[in-house]
Amino acid sequence: MDLHVTLDRAAGRLAGQLADELRAAVRDGRLSPGDRLPSSRDLAGDLEVSRGVVVTAYEQLVAEGFILSRQGDGTRVAPFPAVRAPEPTSEAHRRALRFAAGTDAGPADPPGIVYDLRPGKPDLASFPRERWTAAVRDVLRELPHSALNYPDPAGVPALRTALAGHLARVRAAVTDPDEIVITAGVAQMLAVVPRILIEEGHRVLAVEDPLGHHQIPMIRATGVEMAGVPVDEEGIDVGALARTGARAVLVTPAHQFPTGVVLSPRRRAALVEWARAVDALIIEDDYDGEFRYDRDPVGCLQGLAPERVVLAGSVSKALSPALRLGWAVAPPWLAVRLRAARALHDLGSSVLDQHVLAHLIAGGDHARHLRLMRRKYRARRDAFVAALRARLPAVRIHGVSAGLHAYAELPEACEETRVVTRAAELGVAIEGVTPMRVRHPGPPAIVVGYARLTEHRLTEAVGLLASAIETA
Amino acid sequence: MDLHVTLDRAAGRLAGQLADELRAAVRDGRLSPGDRLPSSRDLAGDLEVSRGVVVTAYEQLVAEGFILSRQGDGTRVAPFPAVRAPEPTSEAHRRALRFAAGTDAGPADPPGIVYDLRPGKPDLASFPRERWTAAVRDVLRELPHSALNYPDPAGVPALRTALAGHLARVRAAVTDPDEIVITAGVAQMLAVVPRILIEEGHRVLAVEDPLGHHQIPMIRATGVEMAGVPVDEEGIDVGALARTGARAVLVTPAHQFPTGVVLSPRRRAALVEWARAVDALIIEDDYDGEFRYDRDPVGCLQGLAPERVVLAGSVSKALSPALRLGWAVAPPWLAVRLRAARALHDLGSSVLDQHVLAHLIAGGDHARHLRLMRRKYRARRDAFVAALRARLPAVRIHGVSAGLHAYAELPEACEETRVVTRAAELGVAIEGVTPMRVRHPGPPAIVVGYARLTEHRLTEAVGLLASAIETA
Repeated sequence: MDLHVTLDRAAGRLAGQLADELRAAVRDGRLSPGDRLPSSRDLAGDLEVSRGVVVTAYEQLVAEGFILSRQGDGTRVAPFPAVRAPEPTSEAHRRALRFAAGTDAGPADPPGIVYDLRPGKPDLASFPRERWTAAVRDVLRELPHSALNYPDPAGVPALRTALAGHLARVRAAVTDPDEIVITAGVAQMLAVVPRILIEEGHRVLAVEDPLGHHQIPMIRATGVEMAGVPVDEEGIDVGALARTGARAVLVTPAHQFPTGVVLSPRRRAALVEWARAVDALIIEDDYDGEFRYDRDPVGCLQGLAPERVVLAGSVSKALSPALRLGWAVAPPWLAVRLRAARALHDLGSSVLDQHVLAHLIAGGDHARHLRLMRRKYRARRDAFVAALRARLPAVRIHGVSAGLHAYAELPEACEETRVVTRAAELGVAIEGVTPMRVRHPGPPAIVVGYARLTEHRLTEAVGLLASAIETA
Repeated sequence: MDLHVTLDRAAGRLAGQLADELRAAVRDGRLSPGDRLPSSRDLAGDLEVSRGVVVTAYEQLVAEGFILSRQGDGTRVAPFPAVRAPEPTSEAHRRALRFAAGTDAGPADPPGIVYDLRPGKPDLASFPRERWTAAVRDVLRELPHSALNYPDPAGVPALRTALAGHLARVRAAVTDPDEIVITAGVAQMLAVVPRILIEEGHRVLAVEDPLGHHQIPMIRATGVEMAGVPVDEEGIDVGALARTGARAVLVTPAHQFPTGVVLSPRRRAALVEWARAVDALIIEDDYDGEFRYDRDPVGCLQGLAPERVVLAGSVSKALSPALRLGWAVAPPWLAVRLRAARALHDLGSSVLDQHVLAHLIAGGDHARHLRLMRRKYRARRDAFVAALRARLPAVRIHGVSAGLHAYAELPEACEETRVVTRAAELGVAIEGVTPMRVRHPGPPAIVVGYARLTEHRLTEAVGLLASAIETA
């Protein structure tokens, strides 16, 4: 038997090397189940190593179960082959396979795309890399050792305190650090809160229709039933919401996604009255509430009815979605539940990132970064809207001057999917509103993220987009 | 009406300040629902500001829903009071409250504790702070902007590649980066895999009895039923496992927690044969597999039967649990499911931390750190065991020289809870094995983590521990 074992004498750890080689031989089939191995004396002779090296390697593989050593039977490869386990045939598995095939595999742009105008992503080139590194250094110089232990699953106190102040100042939220739970982005809040609602006897979660299409599979996976409620120029239709019978609703009051509408004062009042009348929970997804360009942002709904609203936000638009850092400002009972959910699921978010963000907020860097980004995004929005109005006067831009995306209603004759496909062929990635609809149809529209391109490139992209719309 | 409004003229943003003051007045009850506010002209006169300031502030509060402005009715505080929502009375809520009351609130030591010998925590003072900061700087200098986008929920490729090599070298695992899913510690794997098993028709998860007691509520929360299987001096009793009827088991083969036993070669073979015979999944919690002091660590079980085993590990013992970074090396079908679970739950772990860890592994820093910590922990274990043998010859120390804790069986006459309580009174925190048992009783024992104290302080602590045992 030729085992093709090669040892690097200069590297040391000869017994370890020999064990590695024999494991590899079993794994790639040079050694088969049941095969008898040479005696330690013979193998030591062949390899020109001391017998102790072979004995140690054999002992290691016996301990691991790769080989068996029996009195009178010598040393053999363990008698079971590595067989491939059958794939599950369940519906859950088929769903996961479809999901895997359909999801964005990560940061890569779609092939052929020159102008990525898909919504939901901030300008990644503006991430404050040097300030972040400096803050890591400062934090790691000051942090007591005990802070490197398992954290409070609700988040480190320094961040919850910093956020309480930040959200009171910037979003007029009613905040107490004890009622803030740090989450892995708004996503985790969205995965957890419906499950808590189900435990509390809910079956239905009302959502705005249309809504962010990445949220649809996340909500469905919780097991809650979604009831789509139409959105008009005042925001969600609270009368229609009441008729669903739901006692929980997910809304984007500051800047509806995708339509860009701000919830009107009348509807805000009606929504809170509805929540109080039917003992409901309002989930306020404040995904881009820090970016309003034409005036001070409208304070969050949570500030109006903190006992009825869980305010969810994140740094995904302000800094980067790669940090996976967000928060939920919850009524006391729900804060307890969210904390328990993290304690039972993942024990909390990365402590270093939390301290770094707390440091940036407390030191004023975060507010400065937000001011810088507001100026940058405002200029980009203005350039995009101006170019679109000039080139495509028939396209109606909806919503207020806010956020990182614009919602543009296409002329009725346009076929939305053809516009999206044709734009992609010309190198411009955008999204249509149709995949964002739950139930209620509506006019064709596109959703365009302008945050990542300079004014000049946005104008170029609008030129191509115009061609796509004109030919579609 | 005296609104007690104070404005800081030097600070600018007068309308914003006035809105903040009026919101505060509504919140703290100085303004009640339905109260009529002064006209903008009167309030501007009282405050000695331009009328435009008051108009803007009122508009802001109208937009937010705090006040209503109606033709002929002036401006009034919105007619709904901030009422406290009722607390849920569900069993789920009572459970969460009990859980909140019972959980470790974070990094603080229990009061009065001078020697913290609770198991499961590494030496936090050894965290490589400067290397971490330097790696953050290097990573943020090199990372393309696109890497700051939403990540692949299964983990960044650089880390999965680095881990594949590391786990092959250090744990003799069979690894392919595509079959590694990054998790928020072993905890998240433990929260997710039982839920996947339930989707696949499982009802029962077998566990070692005793096992880590922090894992018990996490597993129960998944809805799976736990079947405790006794552990003896060869590890889990595979015959008893087969009799549970379970087709999934959670094991700690390298160093059973808490008993410290290594799964014997015979039992390894029997466990794999059982898994193949009944189409079962083995969950290998390799929580401290990198720390073996008397010989090379036994390779992981996953290396023997990769199609049947999901290998879960983390940096919680090697670096810090505060990073919340771990991994699962899974059979292909399960890797798909784990990735989907992250995509539907939290969209992945912090990308910067992942790249930093990848950088430390790829550059050899991580291996160097592990070697340093092995030497340090070995010295601490030796000192602890020597002191215990000298002071308390009646106490039997179980298990191999590995990991960060020791399992010490007390004389039969000892009452375990009294020993734990008495030790705490003397300033020494340890844990008893009883809360770690699922079903099978056994002799009294204590579980002692020696990783965080120097040899000198360990010897002092053993002195106090001896007093506690002698008086209990």
